[in-house]
Parts: sequence; C-alpha cells; structure tokens
Amino acid sequence: MDEFELIQRFFVRPDEAASVITGIGDDGAVLRPPPGKDIVTVVDTLVEGVHFPHDINAADLGYRAVAVNLSDIAAMGGCPRWMTLALTITESNESWLSLFASGLHDAAAEHGVVLVGGDTTHGDITVVSVQITGDVGAGSALLRSGATAGETIYVSGTVGDAAAGLELMSAGTPNEYLSARFLRPTARVALGQSLVGRVNAAIDVSDSLYADLGKLLLASSVGAILDLERLPVSTALKACFDEQQQRRFALSGGDDYELCFTSSQDLPAEVGGVAVMAIGTVTDGDELVCRDHSGIVNYQDSGYLHFQ
Amino acid sequence: MDEFELIQRFFVRPDEAASVITGIGDDGAVLRPPPGKDIVTVVDTLVEGVHFPHDINAADLGYRAVAVNLSDIAAMGGCPRWMTLALTITESNESWLSLFASGLHDAAAEHGVVLVGGDTTHGDITVVSVQITGDVGAGSALLRSGATAGETIYVSGTVGDAAAGLELMSAGTPNEYLSARFLRPTARVALGQSLVGRVNAAIDVSDSLYADLGKLLLASSVGAILDLERLPVSTALKACFDEQQQRRFALSGGDDYELCFTSSQDLPAEVGGVAVMAIGTVTDGDELVCRDHSGIVNYQDSGYLHFQ
Repeated sequence: MDEFELIQRFFVRPDEAASVITGIGDDGAVLRPPPGKDIVTVVDTLVEGVHFPHDINAADLGYRAVAVNLSDIAAMGGCPRWMTLALTITESNESWLSLFASGLHDAAAEHGVVLVGGDTTHGDITVVSVQITGDVGAGSALLRSGATAGETIYVSGTVGDAAAGLELMSAGTPNEYLSARFLRPTARVALGQSLVGRVNAAIDVSDSLYADLGKLLLASSVGAILDLERLPVSTALKACFDEQQQRRFALSGGDDYELCFTSSQDLPAEVGGVAVMAIGTVTDGDELVCRDHSGIVNYQDSGYLHFQ
Repeated sequence: MDEFELIQRFFVRPDEAASVITGIGDDGAVLRPPPGKDIVTVVDTLVEGVHFPHDINAADLGYRAVAVNLSDIAAMGGCPRWMTLALTITESNESWLSLFASGLHDAAAEHGVVLVGGDTTHGDITVVSVQITGDVGAGSALLRSGATAGETIYVSGTVGDAAAGLELMSAGTPNEYLSARFLRPTARVALGQSLVGRVNAAIDVSDSLYADLGKLLLASSVGAILDLERLPVSTALKACFDEQQQRRFALSGGDDYELCFTSSQDLPAEVGGVAVMAIGTVTDGDELVCRDHSGIVNYQDSGYLHFQ
C-alpha cells in the first residue's frame, strides 16, 4: 500500500462543506473563509510514549488528536472548519489505520470539521500532529490577555477527571467514566462561541487548571484568588478518591479540556449547554493565591511542562 | 528550559505582518486574510532517518522544512503568509535549536512568511512538521486536474540536481552546487503566482519529474509524450555525471522543488524570474510516453513512494 492508496482508503471522505474548494489530493487545500471573519489556527502534536501509551486504542488516539485541537479553537471562541493531519507511523497496519481514521473522523464530524489535507510518513515512533483552522468574528477572538482585576474566574464542567482516569487505568483499576474523560475529551466548542463578547480572557485546561490559569494571569499581567472549595469535581472523582486527592487532581491534573475564563458579568450556571462555576477572582498583582475555609493554602504546581 | 522559554528564546520574532492579529503565545493564532481571497494550506513532515540524515546541519533542516512547504504553495499559485511548526525533538539542545530556528526563519523571511504558532514536544526521534497557509485569488488556485490534450508541458529551472547532490554527499564526494540544491531548495513562489491564469495544471517536483508529472496526468485524466532530450539539466550535473546518469537523475531524482505545468500558451523562456522549458505535450489517453531521437524509450519509475 503506497501513500496515495493509504490516504484514499482511510482518510478521504466526501467533502460536503461549501467552504472546501479543493480538499485532499492536490498540492494543497483551497478553502473559502466566510467574508469579514478572521481565521484562527491551532496545532497540537501527540507523541507515542509521551502523550499516549504505546498500547492506546487507535480509535481513541485519532479522536483525542482532534479533540485537543478543537479545545484550542474553543478557547479562542472560534468555529472549527478545516483540519490537516501530519501522521508519522511505524508501519502501514490496516486495522490500526482504519481504527485511527474512524476516531479522527468521529471527533471531526461532531463539529462539522473536514479533513482537507495532510502528510503521511514512516518513522520509528508514532507522532500525530493535527492542525485545525476555523473562523471567528473579526477582532472578537478570545485571548488570554484581557483579564482585569475584579473580574470573576470561571471554569466549565468538572476538573481532575482525566488525570484521575489515567492514574486508575495505569494502576489497572480503571473507572469507566474517568477513563472516557481522558480518552475521549469533549471540546467545549459551543461554550467558547457563547463566550464571545461576554468574557475578557479565556484558556483551555490542558496542562492543569493551576498551570493554565497561571498562563492566563501572566498574559493579562494580573493575579488571582482561587477558592479551592469551589472547584467543580465529578461524582465519579468523589467516589474514587478522598478530598485531598480530589483537590490534587482538580488543581494539577491535566487533559480535562475544560475552559477557564474571566468575566465582569454574573454568568448563569449553564452557558452553551455546559455548567460553569465561579471559582475565584482576578486581583491586582502577579500571584495566584489559593484559599479554602482554613485560609491561604500554600500550593505549588506548575503543571505538565515539556523539557523540564 | 521549559517549552514556554524554548519558544520565546528560539521561535518568537516580532510580528510585522498586518495580517497577523495574534501570533505565538495564545491558544491559537488569529489571522486576517485579504478580503475576497481563497486561502490555501499545505503541510509537509520531515522525519529523521527517512527524509534527512541524522547528522544534517540543523540550519539546513529548518530551511528545508519551510522550503518544501513553500513549494507546495507555489504549485497552487498562492501567496504564502503564515506558518505553524510542530516540532518533536529528542533533547533540548540550545545550539541545535538556535541553528534550526535560524534556518527556519531564513526560509520564511525570504517570502515574508510569519511563524504564528506551533507545538514543541519531546520524542525518540526528530520530526519536523511545517504547515503554511496563504491566499490565492478566489477560484484561481492552480490545480493538478486541468490539463487537456494538445497543451505543452513545461518544467522550471533544472531537474535532477538535488538527488545527484545527495548521492555525491553520501559517497563522500560532495559537489557544492548540487549539495545546496538538496539542502537549500528554492521554492518557485514568484513563478507559481505568475502562472495563475496562464496554465491549466501544475504540480511541484518533489518525488521525481516522472512520478509527479504522472500524478498531474492522472488527476487530469490525460496522457503525455515527454521529450527526454529537452529535460533541462544543470552545468554541474553535466560535469559530474554521464548522459545516462543525468537522464536518470532528471527523470527519477526527487527533491528539486521545481514546478511542472501545462499550458495552451507559448510561454516565454523565463517566467517569474525563472527559466521554463517546454518538455513535452499532453495527449489523449492515460500513458506517460518517453521519447528521444532514437524513438520511444521504455522507462518505468514511480518515484519515491512511502510504504511501498
């Protein structure tokens, strides 16, 4: 099976999007953005042995590679449209490719995203790099840098599930709900779009709530007080771990792909179909202070950083 | 050095392009395409041990990773604008990164392309995936599929140099000109833009002239007669190899990144600052026939295909 045949068999689907003038099969893809919009583009790479275990189900890998990028588009308030795939694989295994492609297309189809191009190469390890491009109203993309003192900090859904799910899987005692939160993360695309015009800064929680909120604060040159007892945790997380562990996962666990954002408005308890929770307040200064009923909690965690 | 610091030190340059609303440092990049244009996007991955030797100069690798993508944009007739980088590296070696970034930015700066985002990860091998997005007049992108019988087939510059250069390097007897043609390919961006409206099909020569012309013919459902004695070869290639070897490199050597295209017009000897040579004719049917003064030449070469 040569590269051409591989792409035809596993990755080409009928292009139904009017915005795709020329999809897979030429030197590049030709795309037509809606008039008067900005475009927003994101890229994320998953490396075997670093971001996913060697024995991951290929369908989950394909799904996840798309979902983590959709999450970045969500954090910009964008509408995802087009996707390219740079796939490095160790061998041309048909059942693996078929599963991988199905997961990839499942995640993309949930948001009407079309695979418009890519590059498939051979290598000693599996590396999956997905890029998604979409559009957003001109000048209205959600950035990390707009938070100001006095605003409320919100987070969507629940945090800590994915890291807890991974830990339980690694220990051989998986919890179905928590595993799915790691393997099949839900990108908060509709929420992100609903937040345009209502929030002043946003980021997605990929490294950890503590680390990613820290990046938002740094980009906005502000600090924050975080109310640890307000962090939303799932029933499953509560059932599997004690309170101290719940807090550790909620603050420092990565891979949740929830959105964290700041607003000067009182937002309703649900936005864009997702629960949102007020968890703290933006402050002057440059510190991220954690507190609970006992007072200030000394917490240090920079989340997952490559190359430390 | 964490990922944030690595990106700041080696990859962030001042964004001077008005089309870049938000560059590196947020969840995604926000870009503003010129009104009324289509956008064109390409991606190409270079894998250590497959597309480049382990001991390649990092600056050449950075340059090459950009140039091969610029070539795809050129083959679409597009104007390259924005670039993202998905870089997997084995270790965070500062001198390697500094060289790599300089080569990457050199190639990008030649065409005013701005690095707007990316992802840097750790892995067991080096994998470089570059994506470039640009614009092209609405509906006027050059595709592979527009060739019709009777048109003239052209190729730009000279062919065979890069593969010959690589072979001489591997043999320990490098030729400076031919090595540079492999290590620092020139993407024919101005040529591609000049061809819009003048040619009916175009492709860039990355696998080999024979293989890539074959893809163009397949996409257009036509055949061709190729005049082997008209293939443009460089003085350096002539100096290093006999006629039979020159022909082998010109037809089957990859990595030249020249453009091959078909037109019903008689084009001048130079277009967009580059020599172009008429090398054959599009025919009805589905065969690529090679001929020289002795008559039909039986030539079989499918070029470089992954996963064969």
